[in-house]
Amino acid sequence: MLNGEMKLARPLRWGMVGGGQTSQVGYKHRIGALRDNGAFELVCGAFDVDAERCTEFGTRIGVQAERCYGDFHRMLAEEAKRPDGVEVVSVATPNFTHYEITKACLEAGLHVICEKPLFFTVAECEEIEQLAASKNLIVGVTYGYSGHQMLMQMKAMIEQGKIGDVRMVDLQYTHGFNAADGDHLSEAQAWRVNPKTSGSTFVLGDLATHTFYMAHRILPNLHIEKLMCDRQSLVPAHAPLEDNAHVLFHYNNGAVGRLWTSSVDAGNMDAQRIRIVGSKASLQWSAAYPDDLHYQVQGEPNQHLHRGMPYLDEQALEYERMGALHTEGLGDSWANVYLSIALAIDAANRGAKDELEAVQYPDVKAGKEGVRWLENCVRSSESGSAWVAYQ
Amino acid sequence: MLNGEMKLARPLRWGMVGGGQTSQVGYKHRIGALRDNGAFELVCGAFDVDAERCTEFGTRIGVQAERCYGDFHRMLAEEAKRPDGVEVVSVATPNFTHYEITKACLEAGLHVICEKPLFFTVAECEEIEQLAASKNLIVGVTYGYSGHQMLMQMKAMIEQGKIGDVRMVDLQYTHGFNAADGDHLSEAQAWRVNPKTSGSTFVLGDLATHTFYMAHRILPNLHIEKLMCDRQSLVPAHAPLEDNAHVLFHYNNGAVGRLWTSSVDAGNMDAQRIRIVGSKASLQWSAAYPDDLHYQVQGEPNQHLHRGMPYLDEQALEYERMGALHTEGLGDSWANVYLSIALAIDAANRGAKDELEAVQYPDVKAGKEGVRWLENCVRSSESGSAWVAYQ
Amino acid sequence: MLNGEMKLARPLRWGMVGGGQTSQVGYKHRIGALRDNGAFELVCGAFDVDAERCTEFGTRIGVQAERCYGDFHRMLAEEAKRPDGVEVVSVATPNFTHYEITKACLEAGLHVICEKPLFFTVAECEEIEQLAASKNLIVGVTYGYSGHQMLMQMKAMIEQGKIGDVRMVDLQYTHGFNAADGDHLSEAQAWRVNPKTSGSTFVLGDLATHTFYMAHRILPNLHIEKLMCDRQSLVPAHAPLEDNAHVLFHYNNGAVGRLWTSSVDAGNMDAQRIRIVGSKASLQWSAAYPDDLHYQVQGEPNQHLHRGMPYLDEQALEYERMGALHTEGLGDSWANVYLSIALAIDAANRGAKDELEAVQYPDVKAGKEGVRWLENCVRSSESGSAWVAYQ
Amino acid sequence: MLNGEMKLARPLRWGMVGGGQTSQVGYKHRIGALRDNGAFELVCGAFDVDAERCTEFGTRIGVQAERCYGDFHRMLAEEAKRPDGVEVVSVATPNFTHYEITKACLEAGLHVICEKPLFFTVAECEEIEQLAASKNLIVGVTYGYSGHQMLMQMKAMIEQGKIGDVRMVDLQYTHGFNAADGDHLSEAQAWRVNPKTSGSTFVLGDLATHTFYMAHRILPNLHIEKLMCDRQSLVPAHAPLEDNAHVLFHYNNGAVGRLWTSSVDAGNMDAQRIRIVGSKASLQWSAAYPDDLHYQVQGEPNQHLHRGMPYLDEQALEYERMGALHTEGLGDSWANVYLSIALAIDAANRGAKDELEAVQYPDVKAGKEGVRWLENCVRSSESGSAWVAYQ
Repeated sequence: MLNGEMKLARPLRWGMVGGGQTSQVGYKHRIGALRDNGAFELVCGAFDVDAERCTEFGTRIGVQAERCYGDFHRMLAEEAKRPDGVEVVSVATPNFTHYEITKACLEAGLHVICEKPLFFTVAECEEIEQLAASKNLIVGVTYGYSGHQMLMQMKAMIEQGKIGDVRMVDLQYTHGFNAADGDHLSEAQAWRVNPKTSGSTFVLGDLATHTFYMAHRILPNLHIEKLMCDRQSLVPAHAPLEDNAHVLFHYNNGAVGRLWTSSVDAGNMDAQRIRIVGSKASLQWSAAYPDDLHYQVQGEPNQHLHRGMPYLDEQALEYERMGALHTEGLGDSWANVYLSIALAIDAANRGAKDELEAVQYPDVKAGKEGVRWLENCVRSSESGSAWVAYQ
Repeated sequence: MLNGEMKLARPLRWGMVGGGQTSQVGYKHRIGALRDNGAFELVCGAFDVDAERCTEFGTRIGVQAERCYGDFHRMLAEEAKRPDGVEVVSVATPNFTHYEITKACLEAGLHVICEKPLFFTVAECEEIEQLAASKNLIVGVTYGYSGHQMLMQMKAMIEQGKIGDVRMVDLQYTHGFNAADGDHLSEAQAWRVNPKTSGSTFVLGDLATHTFYMAHRILPNLHIEKLMCDRQSLVPAHAPLEDNAHVLFHYNNGAVGRLWTSSVDAGNMDAQRIRIVGSKASLQWSAAYPDDLHYQVQGEPNQHLHRGMPYLDEQALEYERMGALHTEGLGDSWANVYLSIALAIDAANRGAKDELEAVQYPDVKAGKEGVRWLENCVRSSESGSAWVAYQ
Repeated sequence: MLNGEMKLARPLRWGMVGGGQTSQVGYKHRIGALRDNGAFELVCGAFDVDAERCTEFGTRIGVQAERCYGDFHRMLAEEAKRPDGVEVVSVATPNFTHYEITKACLEAGLHVICEKPLFFTVAECEEIEQLAASKNLIVGVTYGYSGHQMLMQMKAMIEQGKIGDVRMVDLQYTHGFNAADGDHLSEAQAWRVNPKTSGSTFVLGDLATHTFYMAHRILPNLHIEKLMCDRQSLVPAHAPLEDNAHVLFHYNNGAVGRLWTSSVDAGNMDAQRIRIVGSKASLQWSAAYPDDLHYQVQGEPNQHLHRGMPYLDEQALEYERMGALHTEGLGDSWANVYLSIALAIDAANRGAKDELEAVQYPDVKAGKEGVRWLENCVRSSESGSAWVAYQ
Repeated sequence: MLNGEMKLARPLRWGMVGGGQTSQVGYKHRIGALRDNGAFELVCGAFDVDAERCTEFGTRIGVQAERCYGDFHRMLAEEAKRPDGVEVVSVATPNFTHYEITKACLEAGLHVICEKPLFFTVAECEEIEQLAASKNLIVGVTYGYSGHQMLMQMKAMIEQGKIGDVRMVDLQYTHGFNAADGDHLSEAQAWRVNPKTSGSTFVLGDLATHTFYMAHRILPNLHIEKLMCDRQSLVPAHAPLEDNAHVLFHYNNGAVGRLWTSSVDAGNMDAQRIRIVGSKASLQWSAAYPDDLHYQVQGEPNQHLHRGMPYLDEQALEYERMGALHTEGLGDSWANVYLSIALAIDAANRGAKDELEAVQYPDVKAGKEGVRWLENCVRSSESGSAWVAYQ
């Protein structure tokens, strides 16, 4: 159970690229990084491509004006000159810049924490994976829900055979915030439906990679063998990118899965859901009520497990903060993700290989697998929504 | 609002084929037919192929021993001799007998109420449709949930534009009662996984045709143009028939849909769900809480509509029985289905064509469309789960 | 499990006093009495004090015109002359007439099924109890929810020690249908707020006696020792009778309880709830989701038990009808109540004392205890909402 | 909407008394104070009465060893000598020390943030209130849920007449963590059932003052005129203090209220609930699903309002952090409480009276009213649970 203890000898000096005033994710990164006293210290940022807005915003959140940069290249150059320069950078920018910024940070000897989807291609992921490895640097990916203890509880229960053999995986991440037909997208949204800035997908990359990663984290031994993806631009203004998609898939063990993702699911709130059906029982988690894990054994009363209770597995309780009586949500999960990445960076810095291997966090491989999944989805979609062998 | 009033001059003389002691559906038919005072009167039955068990059971539910028949042919023959002979027959037998029994009843001049899936092929449906029409006889199909007033409310709200244009239809009917690997199926279950007795599908026909029909009833103007079906026998003992299936489909208006059906969804209770996503709002109904219809307008507080309240549409309130304060379920819905069929039979008997056309009930065409959908599902599945044009 | 079997050699010849066109409860009585094939047959009624309306309504629900009576005295007199005359009468009239009608029926040698609250005073209840006993006649009371299997499940689990010692009982029955200030009460409602027709209480008698009875049925060994009642007319037009009341009570075993009843709980739907807190666990049932019983063991995952499942106790499954997969509600519960009363009547008619004693149904004693509770509530309320010893 | 902006020129130098390793509330204080970048900086603490444990814990959470004190007197003395000495102190100790520590801090010229219940008597509260006022110092009280935006939304909607006149207030705060009979209370629990350390109440002070305060914050114009409290030690080991209590009350406007608090409500999780019934509609909030506010207009579909959505009132959105799509909980609420207190301190420090008056936060008056309520509850309870005029 976490109680605000410092887990590192001193906080990591942390900077951000993106995440400024209008960003949808900037605050989530900060709340995640700063919740744990002593994990990270925000020292600099290129929060905005407009230098004035960057400084205006950066100083309002407590960064010294001289360390607010309108350009990430300048940030890397200037910080490199300082004895107290930045050590780790979070990339909270539109997708098309992830690769360039991550690469530049690694080349400057900095650890990176990057938004999902990591890059545009698996090839880029592999290049970055090798670059990071060669420099002993960490690349983390902010799959924000992956720090939620009830998902770790699902993982533990499945490992322990509590549901039997996995037969069916049902994934959903939908919302309705882009349902309006004449949708005048906000600045924070417009880049997401432009292939140049978003890549080859909209909601598959923006929403579904979260859920895909969590399913993979929970079920590390299941691998997709074939897949079918059918996607639509139900609001014409979102074309050519999809605002709604269905993916079906078959796993190596004979299990099957489906995923629905959408940003035009009008009126639905926080509709991320993971259901794992086994031969004896099912487990179901919903982001709307994240503290409440349903465990349904066929032929027995359904059970609801509650966050923080002593009957949970150690893997889950490791992430506990507030105590069982009080509902918590996404913020704690982000904090757990950031903390795990800080521990990985700290272990890497100290050359502590065993410790590093023991840390579970969304790493560059996890980012790569998300991009690989998107590539397979797009290939299926572009083949007339045909089944394709997973590559 | 229904208050027990007789809707017919006298009860229809009603008989059953099947629906005996071990039947899973017999009681549902009886509770449906007999709830409305004066709609039906149970006068005879071939409840069981074992004549002794038939009489034993029939007399226990109040049928005269002499009118309990071990064979439906004999029932038709004997009842034809009586001045007070049976007028309408419910067919609650394994699928493979539906066609033969229905045809025999129609040829004997009797109306028929048949379990779903109606028959094995569309061709059979068309033959029966013509036979019934030529003899001015009604064939109803017991899509049991289709009498639920909240589904009628969905239909009314969509007609009135309350959700905008329909974009996505999400259907589910799953349970876990066949999850056990070494499943020793009960007598009431075993015939369902044998293609000879069940036809070319298990759960698609047994569960999903209900949900498919309701979606069609709610959205009469949407027609499937292409479809993809992927099905599995997740419990090997159920092969070659599927115990789990996913269907994706595209409608003529550009909307898309998906359906999941399963009898190995371990631990899930009453998991039938219909969600219709429109351009402005969504509607969602779940069989587990059938009196509570969710209406979710994007950007506004979510609404829950409650059965029986005066704010509902007339189409819905027509089916109201118990008053708004009290939760009701499937039984009332079956009663509404049976009542609507009784009204259709009565109108047909009186030659009242206009009245007959005004009655909404699951008719032979509805049964045929269910079978057509199954045929398309099977064709897709047998083509490697490929997309097929809907025929 | 009930399957429509006849439980009696022939249906009881049944009549109603009240329960006509505008009645809120008439249909509930009929749906309850007639659901079980062969338990009751509706042969006559004094449905309305207006003879014309009585006949008009009675014939619409299938009663012969000659057996529709504008006056219950005439009904008793005329039916007594027939060889096929009525045997059991349901009293579904305003409270102030219950005593007179019940007494007249008993004197005519007829069994009675009476609405709650049974009569105005405990003294009247005792007189009727003796009269019925002296004539070997049954008096049942329609506590409609008391036939719900999940309440029987609560009873069984508590008997088996599944929650430990009972410590706290939390009861609620509220709705908001009388919230409007300038409430022009309907005919079916107006008599309820007039002490001459309703007695000394409105919602305590109209709603809370249901919940009080169920708590007593579930916890037969707990007896109230002292009680405090505080009641209000929150809508002035309802004065002098209460539309809102709170009752606190202490049981003989040291447990405490509270009850809230209201008809001005604006917007609340079907808010009847029973929570029993024990030293190890709690059980909670809500009328809004009646098939779902919450079993909460301190320190373990919460459990949800579902109607109809084989893991339930025999006492509960005895009342099962539709099968576990399908939500059902109040209608089935009324049917179970009526069936249990039919069995009691049948046993009494046959002089089968042992059988009679084995039937659990809401009897005249149960009605008397409800009236006793109301008397204690009123006494407390009229003493400045002071604690009073239970008498 | 909060986005991590610094609201103060520089962070307040903040210390804690109590809140060490075994404390149930220490982490909540820290997560609340430190979530907003730049509001508070933890500089010192007397976290534990054992000096060694204090330093061991303090340094683990990042406080310099020299500023970890085994005694709060020494902390005040030493910090007073430093130019960068502590400015504001949080008191997270057993109840019986609140008064002494608060007084000493104020006398040392420091602002105070104190756990509830504030002190033992209203007289102590008044003394402290005057002392703070005379020194221009702030005393805040950590009613942790009072920063939840959906409660501010309730307040706004009631002010705007959205529920009509308030008629009934239904409050509950129960859990079951002390249900075990042979309860060996943990160190963090044992002092709570000892009158010397806890004061004259257990759960009334420990749990119910939270809910009482929130009701008062939401309904500032309603004042209790009379009250009745009935309390029990359902687990004998908790005697003489109550582990279960019921309070009924009448407000000045004719509305009535009830409250149930318990720590032996076996199996109940996060069962804090506030329901406000008005003449037109009701509002209901539950801590278990804190982002979901129920708005139930009589005769209309029930509505669910969701945290963070633009349709909420400005008063509520002021407290928004994470965005509408993501469930959050108690942590954010504590952060909002701490932020509001920081703003009050900052305004007081700058002599900005108008600003100070505009800040809504749980102040010493709020603490005093909580203690007054407890005094009235105890007086009623000790008078045989009689109604008492509120003093």
